[in-house]
Amino acid sequence: MALGKDYATQECSIARALEIVGERWTLLVVRDALYGVRRYNDFLVHLGAPRAVLAARLQTLTSEGILEKRRYQESPPRDEYVVTERGIALWPTLRALGLWGREHFGEEQLRCFRHADCGTELGPYGECPACGTIVPVRDVLMVPGPGLDPDPADPVSRALLRPKRLLQPLEIDPA
Amino acid sequence: MALGKDYATQECSIARALEIVGERWTLLVVRDALYGVRRYNDFLVHLGAPRAVLAARLQTLTSEGILEKRRYQESPPRDEYVVTERGIALWPTLRALGLWGREHFGEEQLRCFRHADCGTELGPYGECPACGTIVPVRDVLMVPGPGLDPDPADPVSRALLRPKRLLQPLEIDPA
Repeated sequence: MALGKDYATQECSIARALEIVGERWTLLVVRDALYGVRRYNDFLVHLGAPRAVLAARLQTLTSEGILEKRRYQESPPRDEYVVTERGIALWPTLRALGLWGREHFGEEQLRCFRHADCGTELGPYGECPACGTIVPVRDVLMVPGPGLDPDPADPVSRALLRPKRLLQPLEIDPA
Repeated sequence: MALGKDYATQECSIARALEIVGERWTLLVVRDALYGVRRYNDFLVHLGAPRAVLAARLQTLTSEGILEKRRYQESPPRDEYVVTERGIALWPTLRALGLWGREHFGEEQLRCFRHADCGTELGPYGECPACGTIVPVRDVLMVPGPGLDPDPADPVSRALLRPKRLLQPLEIDPA
């Protein structure tokens, strides 16, 4: 069944947020952008979303100010998509959703999130239990968890095996 | 474009969670259930979702253990949908999403969430700044905010104008 994407009768900030990020694939694009993915082909290979869908999501996320399109090469022209402060502010939502998925569907931990400064694993609210502070997204170190078994054919998954800070551009080995 | 609901290649707890709650309307059904809505007709009038979609979402949420179907009347048989602990555990996700919607899309506050014990407005992580604790969902008092202007024809919206604790069944005035 085809459904529109707005919730016209819903006077609610949750519904408003879902009008923007509630479409299929959108939050996974934001997730990848927070992990440091910036280029169309890298989103494509990592997500496996249909090209037209990915292009539409990147367009929406850019027009809503969640990603920013930046030219990184002039000839031929090539753009990348960099997550903005508005996009970074979606991290608590994504973290909460991932925690719920893991706790309630019995998965092993696929990715660990630590405080880069002290190495302590973050608590359920993104706080560092050792330092007693909410850790800014830039200072979150992402480390592969014991349950992670990535697709060896996907260079983005392989690159995400190395510990890295969130937001830091992902360094992808040439194929 | 019709898109399936699974993310087969995504080895990720966020993607797993979105396979369950990422479809259109699903998180708004959970929101209403947390607000105390329990009956099919009340979800229907408050959400304005197509009947077939609402029925499908209630079915999925029940089979995934997020809502529990309970018979409240035998003749004629009538069921209600009560949010489970697994559904209650989605509150941090919904709260974070609503906060993002409000902060980034310039809306007035539509609903305030307070610590029922002391009346203090909760902080961004659902903590009570006065008591210094994360407030359990049962102890969150929901109060209409200054920006709320509900549809007078919708008895659920009207009932939600009264301050109430989350999870407490909504008391709806007869039409």
